[in-house]
Amino acid sequence: MTDARRDIAPAEIQALQQRAMELADAAREIVDQALRTGFSIQYKPDGSYVTSADVAVESRLRALIAQHWPDHGVIGEELAPANPEAPFQWVIDPIDGTEDFVHRVPTFGCILALYYRKLPLLGIIDHPSLDLRCDGAFGRGTRRNGERVRLADLPADVTSERVRVVLSARANFMRYRDEGARFDTLARAFPNHRVYRSCLGHTLVATGAADVMVDYHDTLWDLAAARILTEEAGGHYRTVREFDVNGARIYSAVFGKASAVERVCRLLESG
Amino acid sequence: MTDARRDIAPAEIQALQQRAMELADAAREIVDQALRTGFSIQYKPDGSYVTSADVAVESRLRALIAQHWPDHGVIGEELAPANPEAPFQWVIDPIDGTEDFVHRVPTFGCILALYYRKLPLLGIIDHPSLDLRCDGAFGRGTRRNGERVRLADLPADVTSERVRVVLSARANFMRYRDEGARFDTLARAFPNHRVYRSCLGHTLVATGAADVMVDYHDTLWDLAAARILTEEAGGHYRTVREFDVNGARIYSAVFGKASAVERVCRLLESG
Repeated sequence: MTDARRDIAPAEIQALQQRAMELADAAREIVDQALRTGFSIQYKPDGSYVTSADVAVESRLRALIAQHWPDHGVIGEELAPANPEAPFQWVIDPIDGTEDFVHRVPTFGCILALYYRKLPLLGIIDHPSLDLRCDGAFGRGTRRNGERVRLADLPADVTSERVRVVLSARANFMRYRDEGARFDTLARAFPNHRVYRSCLGHTLVATGAADVMVDYHDTLWDLAAARILTEEAGGHYRTVREFDVNGARIYSAVFGKASAVERVCRLLESG
Repeated sequence: MTDARRDIAPAEIQALQQRAMELADAAREIVDQALRTGFSIQYKPDGSYVTSADVAVESRLRALIAQHWPDHGVIGEELAPANPEAPFQWVIDPIDGTEDFVHRVPTFGCILALYYRKLPLLGIIDHPSLDLRCDGAFGRGTRRNGERVRLADLPADVTSERVRVVLSARANFMRYRDEGARFDTLARAFPNHRVYRSCLGHTLVATGAADVMVDYHDTLWDLAAARILTEEAGGHYRTVREFDVNGARIYSAVFGKASAVERVCRLLESG
């Protein structure tokens, strides 16, 4: 099977990536300013937060995308889709971890990705309060603050107690469908796990700082950049669960170093 | 019962705190430079890491302490105690979360505290890669990057699903004594929990960014600053477990917003 992304010339991918980095710069500027000068907070119907900064970032990125690529589509967390039939689709989570942003926990981030015919062409996760950015593009590798990263696989003799696993919160495993028992199984099997906001887990895994992430019950924009960043770093990405809730597609994924992904998936399949 | 710390003049506490901030500056400088220019890594007998940066920070802080206060004692993670009978005792964890430091996960920190007759007089947790410092001193409050913080208690109607709990890793609950089942109980009761490196949890709780931390099976230096930082911010601190392992005292503590501490302790007592 041919990969549709091979239809895009490498020079075009590079140009798209450069522009995407400017979009991430614009997002960071808005977030940094909001942290300095303040922002308003509202509760969404599901009880989660949205701030004036989330909306400002998404609006700004949509304006820039419309200016550079008027025929591209946009799917974002806070606003309605644009050009839904276009082959190029930008996916935006303006602030992943708004709860953390509100409480000034520095683990939140902006997630931005471009898909071509449903395959990820490039991805960026930017963490303004960590001065940390992970970006990658099809055929061009993954970078941490501009430096190329490459995942080494786990040594074969690493015990489960030592594998550096990131889990999404147990609350994630319980939303939409209660799979909290899977969290418990994973936590017992991999006791050296951490629980971070999704986007920080994605960055740590794609840059090799953690071995594998198990991220349950997310939307398209939460996981928008995780696959391209992991695969371009030399890691594996597996969607382990996919279903619809009120018309929205919900995904669960395991990604990171190849053998760590395999170990986790084996455990999930046996459970 | 009188608090021995009241014997120390407020001006003296202020002077000690100012000097302690200089110590934290010196630690940060060494860590930042190690991240830029590299460091060596060794494994300790228990399988944990120690780097040349851990040892360099502790050595430098000990030299500064000996210079400013030759009669003060020092207890640190990496080197032997000095002046163990002195009423003033500095407690140092040069890099809490060396595993994170080694992998460039930005959640590690330097923990520094001064005790007077076994009571905490001042504490600092400095996170070089987060540009974040929490410091506090007896009668002088707690600050986040120099700005005074004050913990508001939880609203009475907050459900357990919404309480922002930080747990130490399940691996912590299992070391020395296997209390992993307590981790599972907490994770189920408070599904919106996160698992961070101890020092980041302490900082988030003391600055109100999280509601409560449950930190199991730690040494004196791991928890050195947590109590003074939490109490001076207006929160509560409870030691819930204390025992000796090979001559070392192991502590477990629950600390944060008053009613959140009470809820967690009630759960632990019932389990």
